[in-house]
Amino acid sequence: MKENITMNDINADELAQACAASMYKRDFAVQKAGITLDIVKPGYACLEMEVREDMVNGHNVCHGGYLFLLADTAFAYACNSYNKVTYAQSCDIDFIEAAKSGEKLIAVAEECKRGRRTGVYDATISRVDGEILAYFRGRSYQVKGEVIQE
Amino acid sequence: MKENITMNDINADELAQACAASMYKRDFAVQKAGITLDIVKPGYACLEMEVREDMVNGHNVCHGGYLFLLADTAFAYACNSYNKVTYAQSCDIDFIEAAKSGEKLIAVAEECKRGRRTGVYDATISRVDGEILAYFRGRSYQVKGEVIQE
Amino acid sequence: MKENITMNDINADELAQACAASMYKRDFAVQKAGITLDIVKPGYACLEMEVREDMVNGHNVCHGGYLFLLADTAFAYACNSYNKVTYAQSCDIDFIEAAKSGEKLIAVAEECKRGRRTGVYDATISRVDGEILAYFRGRSYQVKGEVIQE
Amino acid sequence: MKENITMNDINADELAQACAASMYKRDFAVQKAGITLDIVKPGYACLEMEVREDMVNGHNVCHGGYLFLLADTAFAYACNSYNKVTYAQSCDIDFIEAAKSGEKLIAVAEECKRGRRTGVYDATISRVDGEILAYFRGRSYQVKGEVIQE
Repeated sequence: MKENITMNDINADELAQACAASMYKRDFAVQKAGITLDIVKPGYACLEMEVREDMVNGHNVCHGGYLFLLADTAFAYACNSYNKVTYAQSCDIDFIEAAKSGEKLIAVAEECKRGRRTGVYDATISRVDGEILAYFRGRSYQVKGEVIQE
Repeated sequence: MKENITMNDINADELAQACAASMYKRDFAVQKAGITLDIVKPGYACLEMEVREDMVNGHNVCHGGYLFLLADTAFAYACNSYNKVTYAQSCDIDFIEAAKSGEKLIAVAEECKRGRRTGVYDATISRVDGEILAYFRGRSYQVKGEVIQE
Repeated sequence: MKENITMNDINADELAQACAASMYKRDFAVQKAGITLDIVKPGYACLEMEVREDMVNGHNVCHGGYLFLLADTAFAYACNSYNKVTYAQSCDIDFIEAAKSGEKLIAVAEECKRGRRTGVYDATISRVDGEILAYFRGRSYQVKGEVIQE
Repeated sequence: MKENITMNDINADELAQACAASMYKRDFAVQKAGITLDIVKPGYACLEMEVREDMVNGHNVCHGGYLFLLADTAFAYACNSYNKVTYAQSCDIDFIEAAKSGEKLIAVAEECKRGRRTGVYDATISRVDGEILAYFRGRSYQVKGEVIQE
């Protein structure tokens, strides 16, 4: 825990939150999936989603696509937290345990490394009891433009 | 092109289609996304999805999660085409070009290798003009149980 | 098969070969592993390596690191074939079958997509009978500088 | 730090070390690369390697194949620490910074999840100052047989 929060820290945190708020407003895919933003900080995001009936696949568990959507969204909010438009370049996901309908899932994305244009982010999806259901790694690529739009 | 289709080929194709039909009936995630099955054969699936307004993210393009959902579904129908319940173990996706709202996307998944329990499948997502938007690779793991349920 | 090879094609092929020759001369890792270049064209490379006794691991098969080294080298010669210094950003490898000491392996890398700075390349490692031992996918990143050095 | 080491802990640790010693003795690839084992525990391995002149590629940095070899070896010793023969199924590597000739590298592999047959392991490659040069993720597959051989 940092004892002395400097003005710079506050500004970076506020910027990250403003980026998230601006993106979320126009992020219909994420709204529609019922994903909510818990915490967004520079290079970090923690999100929640409940597995709905309409996210269940033919094996009667949450479709891997929705686990990916959740992890990829955490990654997106983490890597767009500097107000530079940043895309996912490639992602890997490892499915460990299945999620059932009705379960609440938590995704946490953290920056491993951020270079001039490219970055690497790790994310996990967990149940509320902390059990990890999936490991995710994403590579980001920063392009021109700012995240925050009037 | 095979000239002589044997009874075995026909049966394998019919089995693949019966697996797909059985899975699709209970695959709410895939139905809800508007994904339709064009062709399912042993180790192969070709699917379609139109990018809807509610699949668009904060950068105003189709959320990577929905591109993944489509590719992962093609993979799932390809690797479950032998009537053995088979899960995705891990997947990679490379995003090449963004998809816009209203565009029709085609996913094709093909088997690279299928061993006793594990398999490797490649999938692509393309526009109808053939331009590839994403490359996907999935690793499958066969468990107990049959895909076709009464 | 192209019927009419234009001057541009020839120059691109010659450039690719000159890049490969220049890189190979200072590529001690590749020389030391006994890797030889069969064909290098724009966005394409075909290489060979024999599994030596000193490439075998504790399970008595070729160490996955040497399979990766071979595939990664094919990728490197394919993506550096335009005389722009290009690095590997990330790579995936799927091991299908083990290679034994004494076996000759062939690696083929092909370009899936090449953008302004980034690219995606697929490679396979096969035995001479065509059996595929590993699937590889690499992402490239072009930096400043030219491959060919005086 | 555990205060009370139980007999079970000691046995698991001793078994892991005996597996490593047995594998290393016949692991010519790893010996030849000058890789040394610092710590091997259940699901964990820490290794060292110095970048030699003959590991340098045509861009005058350590060939990615040798970074992979090091990370993959840490993964192998971590996942074979239970005396069950375990193979790498697939691996991903993200290259962050290049390594130069003469540098000493440290690889640490840790278990994310180990199921009945399959497992997921994360590894990093760092310089001695702690700077991470590469992130690695490996998927393991346990087959029949024991690691320790008389």
